Amino acid sequence: MLTAFILSADGTVSRDSSEASLAAAVRDPQTTFWLDMCKPTDEEISLLDDVFGFHPLAIEDTIGYSQRPKIESYNHIGDACKSGYFYMVFHGPDLETFRQKLRTKELDIFVSDRYMVTIRDERIKSVDEVLGKAEAGPERVLARGTDVLLYSILDHMIDNYEPILDYLQDALDDLEERALLRPEPSVLTSISVKKRELLNLRRIVAPQREVVAQLTRGDVPFIREGTRVFMRDVQDHLIRIVEMVELYRDLVVGARDIYLSSISNRLNEIMKTLTMITVFALPLTVGTGFFGMNFKEDVSFFDWMLTHPMGFWIATALTVGTIGGIFYWFYRKGWLRREERINELPE
Amino acid sequence: MLTAFILSADGTVSRDSSEASLAAAVRDPQTTFWLDMCKPTDEEISLLDDVFGFHPLAIEDTIGYSQRPKIESYNHIGDACKSGYFYMVFHGPDLETFRQKLRTKELDIFVSDRYMVTIRDERIKSVDEVLGKAEAGPERVLARGTDVLLYSILDHMIDNYEPILDYLQDALDDLEERALLRPEPSVLTSISVKKRELLNLRRIVAPQREVVAQLTRGDVPFIREGTRVFMRDVQDHLIRIVEMVELYRDLVVGARDIYLSSISNRLNEIMKTLTMITVFALPLTVGTGFFGMNFKEDVSFFDWMLTHPMGFWIATALTVGTIGGIFYWFYRKGWLRREERINELPE
Amino acid sequence: MLTAFILSADGTVSRDSSEASLAAAVRDPQTTFWLDMCKPTDEEISLLDDVFGFHPLAIEDTIGYSQRPKIESYNHIGDACKSGYFYMVFHGPDLETFRQKLRTKELDIFVSDRYMVTIRDERIKSVDEVLGKAEAGPERVLARGTDVLLYSILDHMIDNYEPILDYLQDALDDLEERALLRPEPSVLTSISVKKRELLNLRRIVAPQREVVAQLTRGDVPFIREGTRVFMRDVQDHLIRIVEMVELYRDLVVGARDIYLSSISNRLNEIMKTLTMITVFALPLTVGTGFFGMNFKEDVSFFDWMLTHPMGFWIATALTVGTIGGIFYWFYRKGWLRREERINELPE
Amino acid sequence: MLTAFILSADGTVSRDSSEASLAAAVRDPQTTFWLDMCKPTDEEISLLDDVFGFHPLAIEDTIGYSQRPKIESYNHIGDACKSGYFYMVFHGPDLETFRQKLRTKELDIFVSDRYMVTIRDERIKSVDEVLGKAEAGPERVLARGTDVLLYSILDHMIDNYEPILDYLQDALDDLEERALLRPEPSVLTSISVKKRELLNLRRIVAPQREVVAQLTRGDVPFIREGTRVFMRDVQDHLIRIVEMVELYRDLVVGARDIYLSSISNRLNEIMKTLTMITVFALPLTVGTGFFGMNFKEDVSFFDWMLTHPMGFWIATALTVGTIGGIFYWFYRKGWLRREERINELPE
Amino acid sequence: MLTAFILSADGTVSRDSSEASLAAAVRDPQTTFWLDMCKPTDEEISLLDDVFGFHPLAIEDTIGYSQRPKIESYNHIGDACKSGYFYMVFHGPDLETFRQKLRTKELDIFVSDRYMVTIRDERIKSVDEVLGKAEAGPERVLARGTDVLLYSILDHMIDNYEPILDYLQDALDDLEERALLRPEPSVLTSISVKKRELLNLRRIVAPQREVVAQLTRGDVPFIREGTRVFMRDVQDHLIRIVEMVELYRDLVVGARDIYLSSISNRLNEIMKTLTMITVFALPLTVGTGFFGMNFKEDVSFFDWMLTHPMGFWIATALTVGTIGGIFYWFYRKGWLRREERINELPE
Repeated sequence: MLTAFILSADGTVSRDSSEASLAAAVRDPQTTFWLDMCKPTDEEISLLDDVFGFHPLAIEDTIGYSQRPKIESYNHIGDACKSGYFYMVFHGPDLETFRQKLRTKELDIFVSDRYMVTIRDERIKSVDEVLGKAEAGPERVLARGTDVLLYSILDHMIDNYEPILDYLQDALDDLEERALLRPEPSVLTSISVKKRELLNLRRIVAPQREVVAQLTRGDVPFIREGTRVFMRDVQDHLIRIVEMVELYRDLVVGARDIYLSSISNRLNEIMKTLTMITVFALPLTVGTGFFGMNFKEDVSFFDWMLTHPMGFWIATALTVGTIGGIFYWFYRKGWLRREERINELPE
Repeated sequence: MLTAFILSADGTVSRDSSEASLAAAVRDPQTTFWLDMCKPTDEEISLLDDVFGFHPLAIEDTIGYSQRPKIESYNHIGDACKSGYFYMVFHGPDLETFRQKLRTKELDIFVSDRYMVTIRDERIKSVDEVLGKAEAGPERVLARGTDVLLYSILDHMIDNYEPILDYLQDALDDLEERALLRPEPSVLTSISVKKRELLNLRRIVAPQREVVAQLTRGDVPFIREGTRVFMRDVQDHLIRIVEMVELYRDLVVGARDIYLSSISNRLNEIMKTLTMITVFALPLTVGTGFFGMNFKEDVSFFDWMLTHPMGFWIATALTVGTIGGIFYWFYRKGWLRREERINELPE
Repeated sequence: MLTAFILSADGTVSRDSSEASLAAAVRDPQTTFWLDMCKPTDEEISLLDDVFGFHPLAIEDTIGYSQRPKIESYNHIGDACKSGYFYMVFHGPDLETFRQKLRTKELDIFVSDRYMVTIRDERIKSVDEVLGKAEAGPERVLARGTDVLLYSILDHMIDNYEPILDYLQDALDDLEERALLRPEPSVLTSISVKKRELLNLRRIVAPQREVVAQLTRGDVPFIREGTRVFMRDVQDHLIRIVEMVELYRDLVVGARDIYLSSISNRLNEIMKTLTMITVFALPLTVGTGFFGMNFKEDVSFFDWMLTHPMGFWIATALTVGTIGGIFYWFYRKGWLRREERINELPE
Repeated sequence: MLTAFILSADGTVSRDSSEASLAAAVRDPQTTFWLDMCKPTDEEISLLDDVFGFHPLAIEDTIGYSQRPKIESYNHIGDACKSGYFYMVFHGPDLETFRQKLRTKELDIFVSDRYMVTIRDERIKSVDEVLGKAEAGPERVLARGTDVLLYSILDHMIDNYEPILDYLQDALDDLEERALLRPEPSVLTSISVKKRELLNLRRIVAPQREVVAQLTRGDVPFIREGTRVFMRDVQDHLIRIVEMVELYRDLVVGARDIYLSSISNRLNEIMKTLTMITVFALPLTVGTGFFGMNFKEDVSFFDWMLTHPMGFWIATALTVGTIGGIFYWFYRKGWLRREERINELPE
Repeated sequence: MLTAFILSADGTVSRDSSEASLAAAVRDPQTTFWLDMCKPTDEEISLLDDVFGFHPLAIEDTIGYSQRPKIESYNHIGDACKSGYFYMVFHGPDLETFRQKLRTKELDIFVSDRYMVTIRDERIKSVDEVLGKAEAGPERVLARGTDVLLYSILDHMIDNYEPILDYLQDALDDLEERALLRPEPSVLTSISVKKRELLNLRRIVAPQREVVAQLTRGDVPFIREGTRVFMRDVQDHLIRIVEMVELYRDLVVGARDIYLSSISNRLNEIMKTLTMITVFALPLTVGTGFFGMNFKEDVSFFDWMLTHPMGFWIATALTVGTIGGIFYWFYRKGWLRREERINELPE
């Protein structure tokens, strides 16, 4: 779907996105315009070559599989405007699905001092928001120049990363808590998934920093001094996002450590229980076995115990006494100290 | 709340922070002044635009959420002083709460050769201290120039990180000791919290280093040669703080290793106990079982043992002897060697 | 085997790869040609010296053992063309064997503005593809210049890394799943092998980035402005490959963590089972031992239990009751909670 | 305590460290002198301001808490010599205590082309050595210039790190051996202490590298070409020390790994013992229990076994046979293979 | 032992290494010569000062303890040739002992456009090889210039690292295999030793890269353009060696991981065996205990079981049945699945 805003020298705005209208706009050096292609058809893509004469490599990149964020300067024969242009790839977050799977959406931008062409394979919230503003007042949006228009889109795009950072913060807190209180195998898969998502997010966001750095320096001629200050603001946001992603990676590693320690802790608790039970049972087993021996009546002492009227009670007393002694030994060893309840830990 | 110190060309100091007075001070090129906004109202914030004509992005940053430390040079149409200014974000430590939760307080500074505007959302000890000095002798504080005034605030701010570093040193020593002597799950949460706090502290302090680096170089024109030496001193302190934070991160990792090892050590001790008890119990269980067998009287040897007057004592002697043998075996194996008491370890 | 395409000034293409023909081509400054040597014999290798006068070190490198990717500029006496040339080493993936063992194939290239010589010890798919094109229309392939010819080969070569990346992605997903569900020793060897392969792949691919970087800058004079844009595209691909390899290395480390955790988890499960069984068995062992004691009839209470008609049933009831109590205790402890079935985990 | 060596233009050396004498030396441009302050009193410190007019920040640094090694150039109004000077902080090792606790001693140096002032809060061996030489022949030491004097002190200082490196090498070898042979909790505390000491040592030594780097370059004007060669030698030593410290950190990490592995190994050995004992005991327990059953005489087969004259011997033979079978099974499993004696391992 | 090759202007070669002959060679600007000192006596070392007038620091370095590889330019009064010279330290591998202990041998080189002096404390294979060539045809070796002579020695030296890399590859493969199949404590010591050796090797080889880098750039004036190409080849080899050492360090870390995992795996196997045996034994112990109870004849049901002619067989059937049930339970749990035989793993 094509959306076009063509601002003529006389201040009128045309919304005609036909090939003829666009070709006229390209030829007229007084015209400023924005062409947005959302889920473009092959025919619409062919306008990039037919009308604008963009470089085949750049066009191929807009169609092809997911590109790294980048900025490239083109100045070649065949460029319909004959004034050179920049080709950029940006990635905005996918705000619909990030809770299930963190992914980004690619936005391709061709931009020069007179026009901006945005191409995307799916709806992107930030572009739609600026489109909305342009539809409300196209003159105001276009009259400020393509550099301000580019800034608007980037600014919206970067702002949209905020909910993802907030979500990640919560998700990692939750992961850490689960690792501590319920160290189950699913925690491990969650950690692995989060780590992978953060690695991917970093891979996408980090190079955007360098792209915007070029926009804040004087490398892109049509970005005016006054607009560069705004680009610096986008840059600040990007640096902060990368820093947060790095921080989250450290937290994921921490969650894994907590998980492993929790498992070890549980093993210790289990083994302590097993050992104590084995030890407590010992006097009972040995005691009952002892008095089950079949020595004959003339074996004086043993027989005396078995036949003495209080024998049973003495045997019971001895056994209980031994268990009491073990109890006291464990108490001294500190094993009976009540295990800190990990589910009662204060945050 | 606004606090203003306006030093006129004739050496008199006005404390009038009304809009009219500030506007006059801005216009008069002979005037030097400091305006401090503590928890500013919306109306007071609007002075930044109305009186000073600061850049909307910078004003937005002073209001908005927590910013990374940064320094930005502004020189644009609309600046009421027409001489350019710098916008800086610094973070001072929160000295009230750091024992519960390490956090920092943001200080926004607009500064030029003639004025300094400080804005903060909460009381900051270092600013209050310099304010106190200014109230005692405003001429002396202002007459030395805005660069010295800026230095005073930064110097106080950085000095206030010291108690936090001392506290962290103690907290980590304590953490290491707990990890070694009482490896309970709460140690793990403490480690996780400390690690996160240190990551955050580093994230805030490290970029301040680069900001101050610009102040020590010739990048900021109104900072005079003589003041740069002082800024270099602030820089030295900042580098030291970052180094200590890095060191502490290494120590936190070390505490985690100690925790994990302590758990393993305890498991070993538990298992050794279990094994020894099982082994010691064996002769008793087998022995009592043996003499509990029901072979009939004509089974010569077995019967002979059960009926022999000394049979019981011989059986007891055999059992005790076996246990003694096991005892000797363990002694040789070194398992009976008294476990090093970890709570008696010298520091 | 030699394959030659010699484009004369008059536009005719000769396929004669005899020494005389090549020597003539070298001497004629109007001629552009491509010589490909696949599995060259010693005699064919000697052409590099005899006909082209290449530097002995470069020739030695083409023969010798596997070289790091590199680019070297040569401009020396003895160069038959007297115009200087570049010697490059590239590595393409081995597409036949990568499922068994990841390895690369070396391609040596001598290239100047007038000729390109490619030497390889085995068939390389990307070179064969460009050879195929050249056989179909040699004029078209050569007329565009040696820089475009070089680009074609590099572009094909880099594209051929894609199936390897896809395979690695799948292999690592599979590895992670096996580490989680079937933590057997073979997982460990797979992890070790994959890690080694990725380290080797990185070692080969990463320096190619720097080689191509030189081709995109103005360092190589015969690569024209228009071709550099294409080289930049190759560069983008290479950067992406290196990034993916780095990502995969992180995933391999993650798989190892999962493996270790899974083993710990299984140990916990086993120990819990052992402990529960030991505890459940206890009342049975002690109970049956208790009533097997041989106290004589005049030991009132014990005898009473053994002779009471309901004694057996009371004993049974007591034992079952105790087991029930233990059951309840375990239930409260949460040990009876059904273990999360790790083989039912959602991806 | 002050020690002064003042070389006048006429070649005579005065040892008078009174304020008047020093002030005269400062004023006379033909004089070269060295003033050493060891554990200076407040009065002596005040000479730095009164006589030399050093910068207050530098004086504050000499008094204050431990500084990072640094070099600072000062050139300001108030400098009594009016020729600029350098302020340096160096750290020499504490050779008395390093076996208990690795620490360094701070040496503050003010140096210009005409004088050198050294200030220290405790005796430092390297300074004392150069002082000794100066006392033996003050003319020779001073006549060679302050740059050579500075070199002498730095050279001695760096050489004094050698015994510490040797000690660390031995200590780490010892630590590794203890981790392997006696994995007790104290090893863990030793590892933690060593790691912390190495982190601190690195923090002190590494920045000295950059300080000396400035001395070897032309940054410090009064260091002559010929002396720079000597400074380069000091630099080489420093680089080597930092490299060794890095190496030792790797070894400390290695010792921790060995410790953890040793614990795991011991656990395995313990568990294997427990399992084998449990298994060997089984036939005995079950066997004796079996023949202790109370089936009545008319239960043919069981009674036959109990009453058969050889019954007891057959039962014993069966039990011993079973144990033999288990023994053989363990032998095949390799569990009986003699455990490698870790205390007999060759180095 | 001194070996000298002195090429006079007239093309004659003298082998006279007396002090007089060397002094004459130094003075005659038409002479090119190579002096090799193998295990020099103090008297021979003194030639460096007496005849050549080398800088005392450089001479001290040639005598002293092991130096880091470095290159230093000297140009000072006292240099007998008055043309400046370079002092280099290189390390060649010790090919005799590397299987026991990886170490390197130091070679000190003084080199200028007219002479080269090599000093070494032990025989070094690469130097001996070049010496051998020089003895065969001294004119040819010297006539090509000292830069080519220097290259010959470096080239031989670097080539001699190859057998060490091959050996390390094999040793690490072997280590990994032992860690997997026989995780004994000696593996741990081997890992620790290998890690230390690799750290040391890296410490020696890596700085040689920077030294040779200076030789390939124009930094050393007497190395001609044509020779630099050859130095670049040495550089390539060095980079590859460093890369391989880095790779091997990663493999050593991997071997440690495998070792730890193997230990955990064995523990799991042991515990599973223990648990299964405990569980299988349970019905036997409880069963025999049950029928050993002494309930009197009038306790109907129990007595009925004991006196019933088939009682014994029923009890046996019950016990065997229970064991069968447990067997089935284990089968379902997958514990009976045959353990993957790790010693049968395919490589």
